[in-house]
Amino acid sequence: MPSSQAFHFHTESLSVGSARAGRFHTAHGTVLTPAFMPVGTQGTVKGLTPLQLSEIQPQVILGNTYHLGLRPGDELVARLGGLHAFMGWKGPILTDSGGFQVFSLSGLRKITEEGVTFQSHIDGSTHFLSPERSMEIQRNLGSDIVMALDECPPGRLERSKLELSMARTTRWLERCRAFPLNEHQGLFAINQGGTHLDLRQRHLAEILDLDGRHPFQGFAVGGLSVGEPKEAMNATLAELVRELPADRPRYLMGVGTPEDLLFGIEQGVDLFDCVLPTREARHGRLLTSRGRLNIKNARHRESSAPVDPDCACYTCRTFTRAYLHHLFKAGELLAFTLNSLHNLSYTVGLTRAARQALLEDRFAAFARDTRAHWTTEEP
Amino acid sequence: MPSSQAFHFHTESLSVGSARAGRFHTAHGTVLTPAFMPVGTQGTVKGLTPLQLSEIQPQVILGNTYHLGLRPGDELVARLGGLHAFMGWKGPILTDSGGFQVFSLSGLRKITEEGVTFQSHIDGSTHFLSPERSMEIQRNLGSDIVMALDECPPGRLERSKLELSMARTTRWLERCRAFPLNEHQGLFAINQGGTHLDLRQRHLAEILDLDGRHPFQGFAVGGLSVGEPKEAMNATLAELVRELPADRPRYLMGVGTPEDLLFGIEQGVDLFDCVLPTREARHGRLLTSRGRLNIKNARHRESSAPVDPDCACYTCRTFTRAYLHHLFKAGELLAFTLNSLHNLSYTVGLTRAARQALLEDRFAAFARDTRAHWTTEEP
Repeated sequence: MPSSQAFHFHTESLSVGSARAGRFHTAHGTVLTPAFMPVGTQGTVKGLTPLQLSEIQPQVILGNTYHLGLRPGDELVARLGGLHAFMGWKGPILTDSGGFQVFSLSGLRKITEEGVTFQSHIDGSTHFLSPERSMEIQRNLGSDIVMALDECPPGRLERSKLELSMARTTRWLERCRAFPLNEHQGLFAINQGGTHLDLRQRHLAEILDLDGRHPFQGFAVGGLSVGEPKEAMNATLAELVRELPADRPRYLMGVGTPEDLLFGIEQGVDLFDCVLPTREARHGRLLTSRGRLNIKNARHRESSAPVDPDCACYTCRTFTRAYLHHLFKAGELLAFTLNSLHNLSYTVGLTRAARQALLEDRFAAFARDTRAHWTTEEP
Repeated sequence: MPSSQAFHFHTESLSVGSARAGRFHTAHGTVLTPAFMPVGTQGTVKGLTPLQLSEIQPQVILGNTYHLGLRPGDELVARLGGLHAFMGWKGPILTDSGGFQVFSLSGLRKITEEGVTFQSHIDGSTHFLSPERSMEIQRNLGSDIVMALDECPPGRLERSKLELSMARTTRWLERCRAFPLNEHQGLFAINQGGTHLDLRQRHLAEILDLDGRHPFQGFAVGGLSVGEPKEAMNATLAELVRELPADRPRYLMGVGTPEDLLFGIEQGVDLFDCVLPTREARHGRLLTSRGRLNIKNARHRESSAPVDPDCACYTCRTFTRAYLHHLFKAGELLAFTLNSLHNLSYTVGLTRAARQALLEDRFAAFARDTRAHWTTEEP
């Protein structure tokens, strides 16, 4: 158990509506929020060294329990000193529960009350993930923030089945809470319930009932970024977030477009993660303060401009669009690295700028100006 | 034309035999030799940013005239400020002539006295490379060291045909010399002649005849790394190098195994280049002070040791073999970056250490110890 103060959310600024800037502490450092967390699925944020990553100043990075449990194996990582030492990252790390990948990536599976039997996407071997096993893997990895194992129902499950799934997620949460984590680790509970606000509220009530007996260190909203219609998602999110306890971090899982980040921050979300910035980067699609651009487009072939004139990342400080266009066309590895560096700098920078605006009491103007800058034409 | 002193080779130390430490000056900095030059074919040393590359402290890096002339095009690079600005590299750059790639990579071609007609390996389009066009591309790229265009005969051409090829290379050299390069650029002549020492000597005499009228800034030995038997190559090299002028840099093209570098340095070679360190890195084969290791091997799966305990590169300072094994197995981009960073650090470091040993008059012991350290068993 972390000390009760470790994950206490200190609200530093509250803005019009629900947006908030804050901070909480972990054994690997203080986390300043709002914060976008880059995803390092297999023990690396794809294409970036920890040194390059640290220039972006992410407050937290993610590791994936499903991937790392299968390869190289969580026990090996533990023997090598934990995930921080293994991948050379000194800052806070959050690990997911492995649930989402088991339900989306792995092969044939059987779900029982005890847990999930699945086949590895690597070699087809059979594995078992339960609440206890998920906690064990995350304890071995030694992450700062541990996510409870939830059942991840498909986007539009019928209501009655969704209710059964949520009830099981609550029982699994209780088992996760009972598992002895390392002292420095904090456990976050995950709220499910699709786009049904009433189901989400009922699930939250169950979570808060458990929380009253044995506090969680944070609360996450899951399943709101997997194929739901955007408006339904936003409406549910807006209502739900204000009912999450204000004294601990709130994490919206799998969300990472600039538009969604800004909306989430406005609702009072503190933490976000998404593979979008790095995945888009590998396809040559770059996020900028003026909107999205595709570096493959011929119009960038001779451009001596940086990707984003408002960006101070290494890529934008050093290279022209023409060079990045060339690297991508030539299939050079460096294209992926430089594009990822920029997209993560932009995304992490957007949450950092939002925080600064909140602290300076000019968040509404910041959000308005940021949106006004984005154009649908390629910048 | 560079000022006559720019490329003058200052011998700083001469060792037992012919090995030498020295320096010469270019517009982008002083070059300390012996030096291994990393290859940046398409305007990037594969997988490394200029910042990562600068940590390795290469004295010179290479760019490829064939590749860059086709894509993005040398005129575009010129408009964007030259290759240094384009790729963000502030140190000296050497460009090859494009000849080797035209003769090895490109499609159907016709060779005439005027030049070579070839098909692009990218899109099959038809292009023409002549001495003048090679010089023009290299002038547009703005490299510090320009290589003369030579015909690159296949490994075991019959003697009479080889003589015809060499005669043409001499005529092409004269045309290269007549071309007006930028003031800061130095032109290196290339000696050919297979493993026939007498042909190489005859060709060298022709080069030196031209040199007497219009000096070259350096001399290269070509065609000694393309499939020749090692012993024949070494014998020819040993004889030939001592006949190259001592007052200008000597460059052995396409050579880059640790063993060959050490042998070359012993003969009095100053500059080397090879794709081997980066290509091997991308296949998980790592060069170390104890010999070669294959990071894919299961024996490294749980190793908490660095790749090379004697190496101070970022990879060896930061990561275990177990982590690099994991990255490679998982197909992560970062594997290529970290492996390349190490292999280039090792190779550039080997030439730097040789230089230091030469300056401290302990080169023979250095060479002996270095060889004694290499084992054939995987370290």
